Amino acid sequence: MRALRLESWQSTPQLREVPVPEPGPGQVLVQMGGAGACHSDLHLMDEFTDGALPWGPPFTLGHENAGWVHAVGSHVHGLEPGQPVAVVGAWGCGTCPRCLAGLETYCDRPDLAPAPGGGGGLGLDGGMADYLLVPSARHVVPLPEGLAPADAAPLTDAALTPYHAIRRSREKLVPGSLAVVIGVGGLGHLAVQILRATTAAVVVAVDAREAARDLAVRSGADLALAPGDSLVDQIREAGHGFGADVVLDMVGTDQTLQTAAAAARQLADITLVGLGGGTLPYSFFSVPYEVSVQSTYWGNRSELVEVLDLAARGHLRPEVTRFPLDRAGMVYDRLREGAIEGRAVVVAHEEYTP
Amino acid sequence: MRALRLESWQSTPQLREVPVPEPGPGQVLVQMGGAGACHSDLHLMDEFTDGALPWGPPFTLGHENAGWVHAVGSHVHGLEPGQPVAVVGAWGCGTCPRCLAGLETYCDRPDLAPAPGGGGGLGLDGGMADYLLVPSARHVVPLPEGLAPADAAPLTDAALTPYHAIRRSREKLVPGSLAVVIGVGGLGHLAVQILRATTAAVVVAVDAREAARDLAVRSGADLALAPGDSLVDQIREAGHGFGADVVLDMVGTDQTLQTAAAAARQLADITLVGLGGGTLPYSFFSVPYEVSVQSTYWGNRSELVEVLDLAARGHLRPEVTRFPLDRAGMVYDRLREGAIEGRAVVVAHEEYTP
Amino acid sequence: MRALRLESWQSTPQLREVPVPEPGPGQVLVQMGGAGACHSDLHLMDEFTDGALPWGPPFTLGHENAGWVHAVGSHVHGLEPGQPVAVVGAWGCGTCPRCLAGLETYCDRPDLAPAPGGGGGLGLDGGMADYLLVPSARHVVPLPEGLAPADAAPLTDAALTPYHAIRRSREKLVPGSLAVVIGVGGLGHLAVQILRATTAAVVVAVDAREAARDLAVRSGADLALAPGDSLVDQIREAGHGFGADVVLDMVGTDQTLQTAAAAARQLADITLVGLGGGTLPYSFFSVPYEVSVQSTYWGNRSELVEVLDLAARGHLRPEVTRFPLDRAGMVYDRLREGAIEGRAVVVAHEEYTP
Amino acid sequence: MRALRLESWQSTPQLREVPVPEPGPGQVLVQMGGAGACHSDLHLMDEFTDGALPWGPPFTLGHENAGWVHAVGSHVHGLEPGQPVAVVGAWGCGTCPRCLAGLETYCDRPDLAPAPGGGGGLGLDGGMADYLLVPSARHVVPLPEGLAPADAAPLTDAALTPYHAIRRSREKLVPGSLAVVIGVGGLGHLAVQILRATTAAVVVAVDAREAARDLAVRSGADLALAPGDSLVDQIREAGHGFGADVVLDMVGTDQTLQTAAAAARQLADITLVGLGGGTLPYSFFSVPYEVSVQSTYWGNRSELVEVLDLAARGHLRPEVTRFPLDRAGMVYDRLREGAIEGRAVVVAHEEYTP
Repeated sequence: MRALRLESWQSTPQLREVPVPEPGPGQVLVQMGGAGACHSDLHLMDEFTDGALPWGPPFTLGHENAGWVHAVGSHVHGLEPGQPVAVVGAWGCGTCPRCLAGLETYCDRPDLAPAPGGGGGLGLDGGMADYLLVPSARHVVPLPEGLAPADAAPLTDAALTPYHAIRRSREKLVPGSLAVVIGVGGLGHLAVQILRATTAAVVVAVDAREAARDLAVRSGADLALAPGDSLVDQIREAGHGFGADVVLDMVGTDQTLQTAAAAARQLADITLVGLGGGTLPYSFFSVPYEVSVQSTYWGNRSELVEVLDLAARGHLRPEVTRFPLDRAGMVYDRLREGAIEGRAVVVAHEEYTP
Repeated sequence: MRALRLESWQSTPQLREVPVPEPGPGQVLVQMGGAGACHSDLHLMDEFTDGALPWGPPFTLGHENAGWVHAVGSHVHGLEPGQPVAVVGAWGCGTCPRCLAGLETYCDRPDLAPAPGGGGGLGLDGGMADYLLVPSARHVVPLPEGLAPADAAPLTDAALTPYHAIRRSREKLVPGSLAVVIGVGGLGHLAVQILRATTAAVVVAVDAREAARDLAVRSGADLALAPGDSLVDQIREAGHGFGADVVLDMVGTDQTLQTAAAAARQLADITLVGLGGGTLPYSFFSVPYEVSVQSTYWGNRSELVEVLDLAARGHLRPEVTRFPLDRAGMVYDRLREGAIEGRAVVVAHEEYTP
Repeated sequence: MRALRLESWQSTPQLREVPVPEPGPGQVLVQMGGAGACHSDLHLMDEFTDGALPWGPPFTLGHENAGWVHAVGSHVHGLEPGQPVAVVGAWGCGTCPRCLAGLETYCDRPDLAPAPGGGGGLGLDGGMADYLLVPSARHVVPLPEGLAPADAAPLTDAALTPYHAIRRSREKLVPGSLAVVIGVGGLGHLAVQILRATTAAVVVAVDAREAARDLAVRSGADLALAPGDSLVDQIREAGHGFGADVVLDMVGTDQTLQTAAAAARQLADITLVGLGGGTLPYSFFSVPYEVSVQSTYWGNRSELVEVLDLAARGHLRPEVTRFPLDRAGMVYDRLREGAIEGRAVVVAHEEYTP
Repeated sequence: MRALRLESWQSTPQLREVPVPEPGPGQVLVQMGGAGACHSDLHLMDEFTDGALPWGPPFTLGHENAGWVHAVGSHVHGLEPGQPVAVVGAWGCGTCPRCLAGLETYCDRPDLAPAPGGGGGLGLDGGMADYLLVPSARHVVPLPEGLAPADAAPLTDAALTPYHAIRRSREKLVPGSLAVVIGVGGLGHLAVQILRATTAAVVVAVDAREAARDLAVRSGADLALAPGDSLVDQIREAGHGFGADVVLDMVGTDQTLQTAAAAARQLADITLVGLGGGTLPYSFFSVPYEVSVQSTYWGNRSELVEVLDLAARGHLRPEVTRFPLDRAGMVYDRLREGAIEGRAVVVAHEEYTP
């Protein structure tokens, strides 16, 4: 089968012919219908060297995956060939207390996981191929009616990540509270849609790019603001003069974190999602009393079920650009150029082929 | 001033001329812009006799109130004459732990409250008059921009009551969960709107009346069902075959409670709001494991702030029929005949008159 | 190997020689160190007939199990022969959303579970034998240091069940709140100990038997009361005059449920654990506002981990009477006579035998 | 009456004769039975200059207060002269949503409070005097039986502050979880006692002073550790190898915050209570995934009720050294020298004098 391989750190991925994997006991082979191309893949290609991570090349790229069940190993029940499915991306050990409670992103024993802190497309072979071997049936989620694999694929990361971040702050997102989303890219515009669908918070989006602010408004933001001297004042005003109850920083630079700290009111959440590499010097008086500052990482199976339901019922409308697998190599070039509108999805199969 | 007085139990209320009250220390005099007429007032007129309640006539009717600040007593700050306000209806003692935590509906010392378990229009003079004396400034909530007192008045009960019931179940109302609203009247149609605005649950409404089912769908229900042999099966089907996560019984008869118990899945909430007088024989096997059964009663100040915000931003659209105060007597006749569409509101003043 | 078999409904269990099972992929064979004898086994022997349950005899009794890992099937990692373990009793399908979130007691697809609503000792072969076959490694919990299998066995049910009930009410069990435990038997005295260890609530126990009340006080109850005319008044007094915040009814008759409803204050929890067959006629005015009434059923893996930790650190001290496996038949006779102090545990092996 | 006055910034407080205040409407005059001397008072004396805070001298010191109701103004109900009471220290505006929900520490309108961000002993006259004027009856909490004002006084801050911090993390403090308290001084040793009384977490205390570690163990810590190279490893070991679930940093220097970040496991809470002036450089990879970092400030009325209940029932045993009011000036000298064991309390009246 075809597979887009990262063969070494700091190299260009190559489309290669590789054997189709065989599913062992408990495993599932998925025929790929969509594999999202993520900015984090560019970090992966560009920034690492041998030994920096507990895993490395060669492997097939693609960690946002959906398709159709093609074959199952022994001891797998309830999955039929041709059934459309999405794939949960965080593969924990499956046996520690957190995995058993469904929190595989925060697995306590990553040393026992298929790839410590990794998964398909992250150290193990991912979904930019004709087939993806999923190491356990528990990572496979049936798609609700009306949702195609190519549309579902990016949801497994670009929607799941902000969904997890928003869900943990839900108690603070009462009607009339103020949620601020900094950065309206692939994740940020879905954050706005999720807030709109699951809460009655006032949603303010922040982005320097006019097109991104337009996207925020189309996604349901009450207000879209550009950075500038009066930004924090404008945010405070939208929050009854008190400031934000929840800030989602999808960028994560020094500057966005500083904006978050200045805009948050007492008892707010500041959640860092973006990998911009910034630092917030946290001290007793650098943020208001009892503001919680935390990162979040991806999301879990039960949350993906909820995300897919939101999308199938029309609450999420990710903008997707499709590329055939044979042209997968160029996706990352385009991504690097910033030339892709919405999310790029590599499509190996338009429909299921038994 | 004019006031619609209930002069004795089991009598017809009369419009009388009474003195305008004077606000004492901490009190607020409100010029009335809207007083909702509630079915529970009919119960009040028809069913009670001396001694049944810890309070009784004579008093002015009207427990769903909004208007404009007219005068304040000493030690009241931050309220200006002419400012539009809604009035929180549940008046607790104000000094017990629950009142101090904002839970005046469940006041621990009702014996110290202005009227034990009552309030304005319930033992004390209510808002079907030119002016309402509110015994503490804490019961007054400024209206958000764009919400008129006549529209706000019914929200203080008909929206606040289901809002409180829904808010307490919020953890169970994840995207794709199933919420069932039994009875689509004055409270039920607002319950549907609140669920739509604040959650991404699937909403199923149940009512025997076709017009009520239409109202449910207009209010945002995914599905509106009529009672019948297959009702429970239809509900289960809407809930992925498992049943409802939350059932709000706005009717409260033996039959609706039985439907609720049959439709609920394990771990669901069944919340009884309607005063239909029904009984659910609760035993280990009469409802699924760990289904919580509870009543709720009205709501509190912080919840009313959230309800008013929802309405001001267009998420709640109560249907209101206005009556001038001089014709207030006929409102209850019409209500008794079932001839009122939506909520009837008695309007003493169309706008503020200094 | 030896096994205490229930060979048909309404029969006396018999000690038989049966083959030692072989663990298949993902399974674990446990050498038994303790199997608790539960009152519910008497119900099982006495009250059922063919077709009443989705499973039936013949099977080996014993659903409260602990011992040592003896052998594991393929694809089981991290368990070594001789390692002391307790066995989670509720065996769900393992693949529905609730099982994947660790809630196997409330499995959504019991039709896919090993025995629908059952488990080892409940339709499938249980632990009153030399060996127990556990169908998945996820049901096996390593014992913390200092806890012997014979002591751990009854905790998997008699402590886990009240633990689950208490944990779900934890928000209401603040310091100075009032918790009432009705019925101080095998589960009730552990409920008192759990409340004492994990909260600073005031604990009142209720039992008609003086010995049981003594046990309650030894277990840490602040007060132990006998039923009688003034019972509810005495409970209210212990609760600052307001009543109970949480009532755990470990008996579950009409009378105890009526006491629970009378003793609860507004917003309390009434949790029905006992299988006494009683009914509480629930209506708007039969219990105070917003009291939640619910049953609970057993508990889950993560809760068992916490229970075992409590016991290993000395917070739980179950009273255990040991019987060798060869005399297992007489255990239930004694249980039926009420002649057993604390919990009876059948011990096949005093220590691990490779 | 006598009063210990701070007459200007950067001066030594003086005992002066001042008039006894008169309680106005809604106010309460308390005869003082105990006023705690807090390290933060030293900061107050030493570090501020005019304009640094929205309030300033002259005022009477003492923000940890208890005594007896002496006189009440009009409109105060339910308080009798001679009744022992503690005083809630954080005095908010009383009318903003947060104050009305009982969260006066995080008042939204400090500009409307008696002293913005201050209170008695903090800009307004405090309790190191014969009498304290409390501006609203809602700040007065009746003492439970068996708790003397001199013992209650320090609880209003030194116990209330860690209590608030612990309560907000309660969901993470399950049996067997790991709580770490860094710094075992006046607040820290009470933090250990609160953890012991209200949770079954494993409690590890950290302090460089041997006497402080002894105090931690006497207070119920499972383990008391000294700083050093292996500190983080020792903490991790106590937490099943995973690290701490909750870290309370009662010191707050760069170094303690760094220890907190290194010891926390994924999803933990790091709560900064100490005013050591340190900074934690927060970034995506400087603390584990989804660790929440926050400060907390003091506590609220409902929490003080719970704290006093804990103490009255023997769960909290603050170590108190009493000083008569006439020798109040020397208290701070001793405090500055580090010569006080436990908490110093200034006692104006040993018992109530009508």
